[in-house]
Amino acid sequence: MHKSAAVPTGPVGPVGTVETRFLDLPEPITLECGRTLSGVRVAYETYGRLSAARDNVILVCHALSGDAHAAGVAASAPSAGTRDGFAAEDRDGGAGAGLGWWDGMIGPGKAFDTERYSIISTNLLGGCRGTTGPSSTNPETGQPYGPDFPVITVADMVRTQRAFLDQLGITRLAAVAGGSLGGMQALEWAILFPDQVDAVVAIASTHALHPQGVAWNAIARQAIMGDPAWQGGRYYGTGQAPDAGMGVARMVGHVTYLSGAALEAKFARRLQDGDQIRHTLSEPEFAVESYLSHQAASFVKRFDANTYLYLSRALTYFDLARQHGGGSLERALEAVKARTLLIAFSSDWLYPPAASAEIAEALGSLGKPVDYHLIEAPYGHDSFLLEEARQIPIVRRFLEDGAEMTTRTS
Amino acid sequence: MHKSAAVPTGPVGPVGTVETRFLDLPEPITLECGRTLSGVRVAYETYGRLSAARDNVILVCHALSGDAHAAGVAASAPSAGTRDGFAAEDRDGGAGAGLGWWDGMIGPGKAFDTERYSIISTNLLGGCRGTTGPSSTNPETGQPYGPDFPVITVADMVRTQRAFLDQLGITRLAAVAGGSLGGMQALEWAILFPDQVDAVVAIASTHALHPQGVAWNAIARQAIMGDPAWQGGRYYGTGQAPDAGMGVARMVGHVTYLSGAALEAKFARRLQDGDQIRHTLSEPEFAVESYLSHQAASFVKRFDANTYLYLSRALTYFDLARQHGGGSLERALEAVKARTLLIAFSSDWLYPPAASAEIAEALGSLGKPVDYHLIEAPYGHDSFLLEEARQIPIVRRFLEDGAEMTTRTS
Repeated sequence: MHKSAAVPTGPVGPVGTVETRFLDLPEPITLECGRTLSGVRVAYETYGRLSAARDNVILVCHALSGDAHAAGVAASAPSAGTRDGFAAEDRDGGAGAGLGWWDGMIGPGKAFDTERYSIISTNLLGGCRGTTGPSSTNPETGQPYGPDFPVITVADMVRTQRAFLDQLGITRLAAVAGGSLGGMQALEWAILFPDQVDAVVAIASTHALHPQGVAWNAIARQAIMGDPAWQGGRYYGTGQAPDAGMGVARMVGHVTYLSGAALEAKFARRLQDGDQIRHTLSEPEFAVESYLSHQAASFVKRFDANTYLYLSRALTYFDLARQHGGGSLERALEAVKARTLLIAFSSDWLYPPAASAEIAEALGSLGKPVDYHLIEAPYGHDSFLLEEARQIPIVRRFLEDGAEMTTRTS
Repeated sequence: MHKSAAVPTGPVGPVGTVETRFLDLPEPITLECGRTLSGVRVAYETYGRLSAARDNVILVCHALSGDAHAAGVAASAPSAGTRDGFAAEDRDGGAGAGLGWWDGMIGPGKAFDTERYSIISTNLLGGCRGTTGPSSTNPETGQPYGPDFPVITVADMVRTQRAFLDQLGITRLAAVAGGSLGGMQALEWAILFPDQVDAVVAIASTHALHPQGVAWNAIARQAIMGDPAWQGGRYYGTGQAPDAGMGVARMVGHVTYLSGAALEAKFARRLQDGDQIRHTLSEPEFAVESYLSHQAASFVKRFDANTYLYLSRALTYFDLARQHGGGSLERALEAVKARTLLIAFSSDWLYPPAASAEIAEALGSLGKPVDYHLIEAPYGHDSFLLEEARQIPIVRRFLEDGAEMTTRTS
């Protein structure tokens, strides 16, 4: 069943106003946990023109807090955009709220060039922005899934994307790209569907989160599940949600996405009001405290706590060596046929450069084309959303010229 | 009023069984916030013999989660000891529960040698282990203070210690020593009472926590205050306490006290049960998750949430340059007359070596005797409790020979 009409084939200009669309998968998805999921809906957006040969599709995969709205201005402006990272207020001339989370990377002449490629972005399985997730209605009960939603993995997200693309008549991908959890999906694509992916772009990602990252995620989930308003995950329709716990989870996440140096540069120990402490326990006193409170408050308005739990669990489970290589990363990557571009950021301590270097080394020793770039950047993990200008030429060159087996520092 | 009988003057052997004692201050403490606190009780322990000239006293100051029981075996074994840090189960031959938090450093022939010095340890103001704090009864209401307890500072803790020592007839200290928040108290002593302190030993400490540390503390407090069981701080006697929030706070603290490398070495990505993931959202799956859950569960049994809030606020407020130097650390340290020993640990990212180096540099340029040791150690901030064997000779030499103005790496 090819609904190719769902991808524009006419010419497009700069990415303008974009509407998120929805597609219902006709077949159930078989999950790694052994369960199947029926009636899966996928939210998606497309940018650029599909070629007649349908060979110019790039799938972009979002990270934990993203959604299908990767580029352009949302037709129906959301209450809060996902382009809300560190220093967002300093960018985009204040237009940030409606802009897609990777707008700086997707568009005419950008890294993912809409004049050449058809870019497709989906909200991932388990999400809360249009694709089926724990806040969706369970067809078997007529109630939201809540904690009855199956515990999904990155591979499940990828198989859902595969099934979705089947519906669009797209067999082969010119590239799969993403940062962080999005990069995990890109790497998983190259292993699960080696004959259907020409190139992988994995940015600020890893083959397996290190134990400190596992710990941060466990703390975030504990904050949510320990909030009585979570109610065992069945909070929908009760008039309360675990906003307090989600706020704490978001704060933890935010600090891990940034470097200590970035916080020092932006906030130092500046007080929020005046230059004297006020001896207050409950009010934000330091500027960095106010910033985190603000981030927490805006995040809980737009994000579902159960989705946070499921995605957090999926990204801690992700472990290419364990899943595919019997403990060996090199064996896990043996099946890969795609060219691979890895970009890491020097100050990223959550998805550290060492992890990307390990992937590059494993691919290299297997004789597979891989290009690894380490970018010196101060913003920690969030650099992948902030250092767009420096990534654009790297990604463009990789997509145009093919990967050489090199390691570069820029 | 000299109650010198409260400090043993007879000979003692190795630190054996120790009982925590209590002393009620006759005068109110005037706090930095402008309020006064009456009827302050101080919990304390002593080790070693007070000299006839009363000139051999070393005050040791504990960190956020410690108490007066710094050395020896507690006479009344607590439900859980404070010597419960990383790898505690691997130390002390299983005797850890009753041992003081700095038992490895205090005793005959140890860093703080009880054959030469009279060591005094107090539970700090705001604490929950015998010294007046938010869980104590407010004499004005007959109810626990809770959130009516004044917002205290490190200087308030030090003034309380000063008033306490007055009661023991001790005017002058041979040294003040502590790690982390304890080191802050030691530094504050040298500034507030420059004529009464011969030497300062500040380990894994700082002159001001960096903004990332401020952020972690804000998150921990938010986790506690966002727990409905906190009840605005008036949870005493209600049959519930913010254990869930405290658990999250402790987990955050624990991860910041350790290095990523230490977590990697101890846990890697090992699963708690078997070698296959179980697709569970709520159960600990990774060994590091189980470890953190265990740490949280044991901590909430022995520690008061309001004390955590007050001490966390005090240590984020601590800022020698702001308090005493009009923004200049060097000016803040001008009054110091004590010799200073600073020890920092290479992997401590919460109280990084750079902060100790800044103190050493400021003291050095003022021409004051300072000895700064950077110890290469993998355990992060907790190294100050774990790397005792390497600290002992440094502290002994400093106390015996006096400080030279040197910087050493060991």
